Amino acid sequence: MTQQPHRERVQVGIVGAGPAGLLLSHLLALAGIESIVVETKSRAHLEQRIRAGVLEHETATVLRETGLGARMDGEGLAHDGLFLQFAGAAHRIDLKALTGRNVMVYGQHEVVKDLIAARLEDGEVIRFDCADVAVRDIDTDHPAIHYSRDGAMHEITCDFIAGCDGFHGICRASIPPEALTLYERVYPFGWLGVLARIPPASQELIYAAHDDGFALLSMRSPQISRLYLQCPPDADAADWPDERIWEALDARLARSDGFRLTPGPILQKSVTAMRSFVCEPMRFGRLLLAGDAAHIVPPTGAKGMNLAVGDVRVMARALERYFARGDEEAIAAYGPACLRRIWRVQRFSWWMTQMLHRFEDDSPFDRRRQLAELDYVVNSRAAATTLAENYAGLPMDWGDGP
Amino acid sequence: MTQQPHRERVQVGIVGAGPAGLLLSHLLALAGIESIVVETKSRAHLEQRIRAGVLEHETATVLRETGLGARMDGEGLAHDGLFLQFAGAAHRIDLKALTGRNVMVYGQHEVVKDLIAARLEDGEVIRFDCADVAVRDIDTDHPAIHYSRDGAMHEITCDFIAGCDGFHGICRASIPPEALTLYERVYPFGWLGVLARIPPASQELIYAAHDDGFALLSMRSPQISRLYLQCPPDADAADWPDERIWEALDARLARSDGFRLTPGPILQKSVTAMRSFVCEPMRFGRLLLAGDAAHIVPPTGAKGMNLAVGDVRVMARALERYFARGDEEAIAAYGPACLRRIWRVQRFSWWMTQMLHRFEDDSPFDRRRQLAELDYVVNSRAAATTLAENYAGLPMDWGDGP
Repeated sequence: MTQQPHRERVQVGIVGAGPAGLLLSHLLALAGIESIVVETKSRAHLEQRIRAGVLEHETATVLRETGLGARMDGEGLAHDGLFLQFAGAAHRIDLKALTGRNVMVYGQHEVVKDLIAARLEDGEVIRFDCADVAVRDIDTDHPAIHYSRDGAMHEITCDFIAGCDGFHGICRASIPPEALTLYERVYPFGWLGVLARIPPASQELIYAAHDDGFALLSMRSPQISRLYLQCPPDADAADWPDERIWEALDARLARSDGFRLTPGPILQKSVTAMRSFVCEPMRFGRLLLAGDAAHIVPPTGAKGMNLAVGDVRVMARALERYFARGDEEAIAAYGPACLRRIWRVQRFSWWMTQMLHRFEDDSPFDRRRQLAELDYVVNSRAAATTLAENYAGLPMDWGDGP
Repeated sequence: MTQQPHRERVQVGIVGAGPAGLLLSHLLALAGIESIVVETKSRAHLEQRIRAGVLEHETATVLRETGLGARMDGEGLAHDGLFLQFAGAAHRIDLKALTGRNVMVYGQHEVVKDLIAARLEDGEVIRFDCADVAVRDIDTDHPAIHYSRDGAMHEITCDFIAGCDGFHGICRASIPPEALTLYERVYPFGWLGVLARIPPASQELIYAAHDDGFALLSMRSPQISRLYLQCPPDADAADWPDERIWEALDARLARSDGFRLTPGPILQKSVTAMRSFVCEPMRFGRLLLAGDAAHIVPPTGAKGMNLAVGDVRVMARALERYFARGDEEAIAAYGPACLRRIWRVQRFSWWMTQMLHRFEDDSPFDRRRQLAELDYVVNSRAAATTLAENYAGLPMDWGDGP
């Protein structure tokens, strides 16, 4: 005998309580549209998962304008510049002077905390710890999310489902493969990410290109440093005892001006693979994909969360128009409106990645060309501006014509 | 019995009567330094050999300021912009508006004609049609150039020898290989270059990226077009009958605004391989290398002749200081002073090449990224400026400090 599921109905069902799904739910609520967010992980897990941490100027503005700015503005670190380091010297890229914009260093999990707190004010709109999540009937006008929790089966019927469940999620996988074109590049290296209890050795981020490989000095707070090292793609964090990490960071971040890192307690370490990925289209029937479910960028440009925020801003507006006046065209326009920006950001993330990393199969010519590119970027105002305007974030409507 | 060679002495012996060797001789003469240019080809050959044809703003200025500008300013075509074409649309890069500089379209062989005419006013300083050219004793203070002509042997003893004899010349080959580091990248394609008796279909150059491969529309005069097609590196011009050439150009240069090329008589066609190459250092003892003897760029950035002119300007100043006050340091500084610029230009030429050509092993991701880069370059003022400032030419002393 089949157990009958517990049934609900909502305008928008959202799979995934990362920044994309949560912000979408928040934006929809502000527009008077009801949504439910279904998530497999626990709240505690989401609120502690260390991910990206650089918010574009416009991303920070959106959070602020939708009532989520208080803690970010209090605890986040506004950065007006960053450093490119190579050949033993650091060169500052003045984001503010070159673009009039800056960035906010504020961890993704902090954004997630703020979003969860805001959404839970509207009641039980986020379902944590769900199992067996599946989407059904996505090519009909009554798509549904199924899941089980605490032994009970649930079904949420919606007008639309937003697939915000990341690269490995079930939403994109539910679309017939022949309906999708996938663009992908896997990089022959990864990043070993380290969280350390040492005050940041630099007030602003340092992106360092070194013969041993790339290194990045970032921070989470005035007490906590976030450090990254280029490593083999299949590296095991267990093979990187603290001493080896500090030695590698010391070598790659060394400068002729005597700059040195002071080792300290390492709180966490993990290896991330590096990939560029785009799925087109971003919609199948009544399922709309956003964020990592639709695209992945290598982290070198600090763009992953910002792209997700861009997607759901466009999606929220499209859904608003749909629910206000049945505008199917707004839904059809969602993916195309996002994709131009996504490819621009893919280009930037690729460019930063190829300029700063050591590629094993690079010839000596390529290595010198890479140094010449860094030399050009820090010496040409125009080239520095291309970096700065992308890093601080091109406005959402950039390049869409007069 | 060994025949005694005919002996001469000169301050600077120059191997190669291309733009580098001839301009060096010209600049030295203006500074009161005597030189002799030894060349294996005939004057007629040099004056008819079709090569590059875009002079940077500063290259044109140097020619003008040293008395070589009259014919260039009369017959050359000053261009204030160029077009990037992709996805069926052309986008203008306004060199003049973005940089304050423009370029001069004036064939390299025309520059060579002007230089030969100017140099021959000083007497028989260019020795054409030389055979068995060799350099000797380059690691001593009395290096010598040997050659034979009309059955007679010749020896020119010098203070310095300038190796301006191109990539396949004897000068670089005379340096012990262990004294040199060679950086090289060979591209998996070539350019089929065509000279056609049709008025240029565009007033300014069109650089076109197309799925079939790159195409370039350039010109030599209001009556003569210069056209290029990306082709396999080992293509044989004989396999490209005129009809095939026009079909390929028509396909690659087609635009949605109806722009079409009108076929006409093809006067000449040839295939050029594409290579990036740098030799370091640019000096061994008393032999100084310049131009293609020391470095090759793919032609996409139109930089080959301009780099050669840059080299010999630096070399002429260094020799001037040496002969004025025995300044050995100026000689030692020659190569390093050129190399920073050379690597910048290598980067630019590589960038233009990778952005505009079809690479067979590119993934669909790479193709989309390439289009995103073109889209970015034509929509971002900063990115367009990076193209423009390099194309019109960075000033010689660019980036050398405040």
